[in-house]
Amino acid sequence: MNRERQAAGRTLNVALIGQGFMGRAHSNAYLQAGRFFDLGAQLRRKVICGRDAARLEDMAARWEWEEISTDWRAVVERPDIDIVDVAAPNALHAPIAIAAAGAGKIVLCEKPLAMSAEEGARMVEAAKGLPTMVWFNYRRVPAVAFARRLIEEGRIGRVFHYRAAYLQQSGNDPTRPPTWKTEKAQAGSGVLGDLLSHVVDLALYLNGAITETQALQKTFREGRDVDDATLALVRFANGSVGTLEASRFGVGCRNRNTFEIHGERGMIRFNLEDLNRLEFLDSSEPGNVQGARSVLVTGPDHPYAGNFWKPGHIIGYEHTFVAALADFVQSLETGVAFHPDFEDGQRVQLVLAAMEKAAGSGRCVRVDAAGLG
Amino acid sequence: MNRERQAAGRTLNVALIGQGFMGRAHSNAYLQAGRFFDLGAQLRRKVICGRDAARLEDMAARWEWEEISTDWRAVVERPDIDIVDVAAPNALHAPIAIAAAGAGKIVLCEKPLAMSAEEGARMVEAAKGLPTMVWFNYRRVPAVAFARRLIEEGRIGRVFHYRAAYLQQSGNDPTRPPTWKTEKAQAGSGVLGDLLSHVVDLALYLNGAITETQALQKTFREGRDVDDATLALVRFANGSVGTLEASRFGVGCRNRNTFEIHGERGMIRFNLEDLNRLEFLDSSEPGNVQGARSVLVTGPDHPYAGNFWKPGHIIGYEHTFVAALADFVQSLETGVAFHPDFEDGQRVQLVLAAMEKAAGSGRCVRVDAAGLG
Amino acid sequence: MNRERQAAGRTLNVALIGQGFMGRAHSNAYLQAGRFFDLGAQLRRKVICGRDAARLEDMAARWEWEEISTDWRAVVERPDIDIVDVAAPNALHAPIAIAAAGAGKIVLCEKPLAMSAEEGARMVEAAKGLPTMVWFNYRRVPAVAFARRLIEEGRIGRVFHYRAAYLQQSGNDPTRPPTWKTEKAQAGSGVLGDLLSHVVDLALYLNGAITETQALQKTFREGRDVDDATLALVRFANGSVGTLEASRFGVGCRNRNTFEIHGERGMIRFNLEDLNRLEFLDSSEPGNVQGARSVLVTGPDHPYAGNFWKPGHIIGYEHTFVAALADFVQSLETGVAFHPDFEDGQRVQLVLAAMEKAAGSGRCVRVDAAGLG
Amino acid sequence: MNRERQAAGRTLNVALIGQGFMGRAHSNAYLQAGRFFDLGAQLRRKVICGRDAARLEDMAARWEWEEISTDWRAVVERPDIDIVDVAAPNALHAPIAIAAAGAGKIVLCEKPLAMSAEEGARMVEAAKGLPTMVWFNYRRVPAVAFARRLIEEGRIGRVFHYRAAYLQQSGNDPTRPPTWKTEKAQAGSGVLGDLLSHVVDLALYLNGAITETQALQKTFREGRDVDDATLALVRFANGSVGTLEASRFGVGCRNRNTFEIHGERGMIRFNLEDLNRLEFLDSSEPGNVQGARSVLVTGPDHPYAGNFWKPGHIIGYEHTFVAALADFVQSLETGVAFHPDFEDGQRVQLVLAAMEKAAGSGRCVRVDAAGLG
Repeated sequence: MNRERQAAGRTLNVALIGQGFMGRAHSNAYLQAGRFFDLGAQLRRKVICGRDAARLEDMAARWEWEEISTDWRAVVERPDIDIVDVAAPNALHAPIAIAAAGAGKIVLCEKPLAMSAEEGARMVEAAKGLPTMVWFNYRRVPAVAFARRLIEEGRIGRVFHYRAAYLQQSGNDPTRPPTWKTEKAQAGSGVLGDLLSHVVDLALYLNGAITETQALQKTFREGRDVDDATLALVRFANGSVGTLEASRFGVGCRNRNTFEIHGERGMIRFNLEDLNRLEFLDSSEPGNVQGARSVLVTGPDHPYAGNFWKPGHIIGYEHTFVAALADFVQSLETGVAFHPDFEDGQRVQLVLAAMEKAAGSGRCVRVDAAGLG
Repeated sequence: MNRERQAAGRTLNVALIGQGFMGRAHSNAYLQAGRFFDLGAQLRRKVICGRDAARLEDMAARWEWEEISTDWRAVVERPDIDIVDVAAPNALHAPIAIAAAGAGKIVLCEKPLAMSAEEGARMVEAAKGLPTMVWFNYRRVPAVAFARRLIEEGRIGRVFHYRAAYLQQSGNDPTRPPTWKTEKAQAGSGVLGDLLSHVVDLALYLNGAITETQALQKTFREGRDVDDATLALVRFANGSVGTLEASRFGVGCRNRNTFEIHGERGMIRFNLEDLNRLEFLDSSEPGNVQGARSVLVTGPDHPYAGNFWKPGHIIGYEHTFVAALADFVQSLETGVAFHPDFEDGQRVQLVLAAMEKAAGSGRCVRVDAAGLG
Repeated sequence: MNRERQAAGRTLNVALIGQGFMGRAHSNAYLQAGRFFDLGAQLRRKVICGRDAARLEDMAARWEWEEISTDWRAVVERPDIDIVDVAAPNALHAPIAIAAAGAGKIVLCEKPLAMSAEEGARMVEAAKGLPTMVWFNYRRVPAVAFARRLIEEGRIGRVFHYRAAYLQQSGNDPTRPPTWKTEKAQAGSGVLGDLLSHVVDLALYLNGAITETQALQKTFREGRDVDDATLALVRFANGSVGTLEASRFGVGCRNRNTFEIHGERGMIRFNLEDLNRLEFLDSSEPGNVQGARSVLVTGPDHPYAGNFWKPGHIIGYEHTFVAALADFVQSLETGVAFHPDFEDGQRVQLVLAAMEKAAGSGRCVRVDAAGLG
Repeated sequence: MNRERQAAGRTLNVALIGQGFMGRAHSNAYLQAGRFFDLGAQLRRKVICGRDAARLEDMAARWEWEEISTDWRAVVERPDIDIVDVAAPNALHAPIAIAAAGAGKIVLCEKPLAMSAEEGARMVEAAKGLPTMVWFNYRRVPAVAFARRLIEEGRIGRVFHYRAAYLQQSGNDPTRPPTWKTEKAQAGSGVLGDLLSHVVDLALYLNGAITETQALQKTFREGRDVDDATLALVRFANGSVGTLEASRFGVGCRNRNTFEIHGERGMIRFNLEDLNRLEFLDSSEPGNVQGARSVLVTGPDHPYAGNFWKPGHIIGYEHTFVAALADFVQSLETGVAFHPDFEDGQRVQLVLAAMEKAAGSGRCVRVDAAGLG
């Protein structure tokens, strides 16, 4: 990392490794973060790196990256690069992130952090002392951040139940060709890493540590070596219990990532397909007016929303990347710890690893996150 | 009316004139009211009266009416009858009700009270001093009665807007034969009397007097001499304004009777198709937790709900007739005024008449209800 | 059972054992079944039986039972009784049902069938050859029966996921005194038998046999010896997987009994709090018009709905008892097998037993229903 | 207009007049249109113009405008400017647009086009032959454009009813200071021009010409000289009827812009607060599976959605500006007519003028749009 540059609070040169859907979402975040947030630093879209030069040219033109490269090993060593952002397939997360960390870069990595907890542990170790971020972008949905605030303020009290599911239906399309996401060698797992990692991250963010789990995995599509669905029962350190679920055969659901939390003072419910809304029930009110309220989380008194438009003027999927990046860059300037960092990403890996083990053995498995700060 | 009988609080002999859908709903109410409510009187299903003797036999057997009759003129004169309940087609409301009132009976009448405001005025006059009821049963939906309570308690404050529509789709079925409801001679009007009367009654109940109106009527089906749709703009005495609408061409709506009220302190919303729910928004709360709550109006602290089942155990359409009848019978015993009575029914007629006149002339028309108590 | 009486298809004398909330719901069913359905037999409300004579007097007067009794042992032996309906606390299900079966009666029993699978097996054995019924009334919600029809017609195809939860919040009220439902000696279990039994019955009804399960149980309220929440993962014989859940600490939920099924051709979703609606998504349609439809299940072409009111005129909780009873009485006359009978009730017990064992051991447990027909 | 530049399809220099909320939304559109759409031209953010130089500096820095100016008269005459975009208060629409048109520029104008139909007519006249656009951005909500496509394909058949309301609650906040939007001299009207103009534009877009109207206007806030609410009844040229409504006292509604259309073959429903969804009911299906489907309009087979993210990944308010601008710029290159242009904006003005006249007189008023192409 070029410390002078950062200290001056001026310009951070970014290298983005990845040219797919995530490459596009991250590019937009680098372009937009400074429009809606005061970052305290300039983000310079220096180089975009991937395997397909023609496609890189197009992305560079469209999103105004200054250079392209097909050699990530060279890129992460470049002295003029401050930030390395890993948006390549899962199998490349550890190699790239570890190399970038070795070169002293600020490292951002798409979720899941790693293909396994072992890999994750090495990444955490490599990045020790460096600013890191894992792109669990849904923490920055205003409604999700607001849910966290309500919980911290005690608005739902002691939690009893946490119930979450991330459902897509892509698996049910037999004409859809396999991708790296459906191969164990490239992805490490199926929905476990792809979708359930989001579910677990939000569970940890909103409800704290998971202590043990039982799980069940299923591959519906013949010839696949990864899980199409993973279902888990969990116990949390705070005494609550929950079901966590993810599937690519959730027919009828395009991108339904929901959670629902029942506490002694209320209930909270969220669905990513309606991400501008949060349902909240306050059970401390008189019984006859209790009901789940549909709160449009777009007001000046909601997280992030004031940075975008006016009350009632909704935001979309991409804004979660913008807000996550803005928070991260601000944390570089303020020194306030940013989450989720690599350690948070590794906490997710440890839960996923326990779920895999539980599913394989048909037995309850404890989660051990003792090694993390 | 057999006053001794009533004074003793024992048994009220009922004559029901009507053998159609309403005859069935009323029969059920007479059967069930005493199961769920303490009435202070016994309702004896004495005689059911209509034109079709065979069908009457069946109804009498099924709903345990003691006798049948095809001569309403004789029935309403019978000294052993205390209550005459008019559930015949609209054209018979005035003749039967006036005859029954002339014989001193307690008179109940299906909505709309009359075919016209002139007819309604004669009915009010005839029934003066007698207990009367108009079957605007939706006032007794627990959620509607609860809405009224919230309004009376000032929970939505000064009202700005009242918006209501009653939409069905029967008109859009070209195979459906005409009935008395689609003939002006039998019904007096189309949706104006059939559906908009319910809308106007609830508007008066929840938001007070209507002072003036503009309206538009439309017959979509060729060959019909009644309105398939009536739309109106209204001003209320309390300063609020509104749109009231009814249609038989509201395709997609089976029985959608909705209202929505915006006041300075909140909003209330209701849909008859989900009659166990009331949406309520309290705008006096902090802005970031404001949202329309979906309240399940089935609790012990909600009107009527405690008489039926337990919280969360919903009721249906028929229960509104049961609760309306129970309230009415209790009012006979307690002497507390019951609403809606014939005067309330006539208030609705006067608004409907103004709407018809407004629609015919394309001009704003004032509603004059000066003659009523 | 008085066979002459039944053969004549005339009158069936009923003895109802139970005077609580279920006694009331069953009383209503006996009163109403013949109004809405052609039963082929008369149901005579002969005797209501319970422990509290004063309360029995009141119930008998209100629901027109001819006699009361506080001695169920005597009642079930009476030669003039054809049907014994067990609506007493769980601990009495087996003793009463076995005695009634021993006396050759038609036996109806509230859910859960028994306190344990062992008890259930004895009940099934005792009632062999006799008509029986378990009051899993939610099978007769029109929307649920319609869901089954859609599934049988292949409208959602091969099933991937079945997700269900029955959530109430009574446990969260610290002022609420314990009842027989919160004591293991009286109830056998907590939500497992009380609420999860409903969930399991509907799962078996809609998605077929469950082959194995993992589970987790939790008692939130100190001093209770029953489960406040039970969560389970299950595998079905048809290859689908699911989560089944029940809780009395589902704060925000009055009576939310939901299921959601994803199949290769569509999705189905239901919530008991809105029991007149079924959500259905047909994924064989063009992608751009796919969406979960909210179907109001009140039409002439829906199960049961035509027996009640008109399209869009909703029914309530009590109607599920009415329809279940009507189906059962009709089955006595037609000889067509009725479900759920005691064997179906025992199938539920076997799944519940496996869940309890799984929760206790933290291991996956197979369900063995080999003994049943 | 610099025709060489345009013909070359290379770079269009933009002058944006406006520095408020709309200035920000337009700036974002100029920045983003080329990222998500192939425009066939480059948009160069040349100069941003307004009254407050300090604020302009900030906006220019944040949104990368090359220059600032406080003199719109000079800007619109600059030979290097191709596009003049008017996002100033209503009172300036006509002066700026007419001056820009006089200088031969491509002219874009925020809605409403004008303060009055007279002003609008002059603007149409001035811009004759020039490419123009009015920022009725909601036509480019994917769900709205998809609704139009469904209608054009006959999916709802002959239309019976069109019902729309745009409700906000800003008027109910007594602490909120007046702005130019609440002064007749600056805005021309209250919600009529501000919100009802959107409603009318979508009505014309989706359901065709309006032939006559009755209306009612209300000012709830003392001391205001503009309408806080306008309600109207309308007849459409296609034989359908409707209610159109707008209010700043729609308490409980942040930005609720809804429409609902009933046709002989189906129903369509939309709410801007959930702009990624369209409800669609197909009444040509078997009755028992009919229901309003909630379609997530984010698929590759939906308008615009494929330009943004993946199915189920929602977009926000700002994207409607991006898509509108992209369509407009593409139309410059392809020569395909763009709508809504100034003539479309004037069609809205003529309806609004008729409504104002109707409200003032309490009489039905015909809309005459004969002068437009």
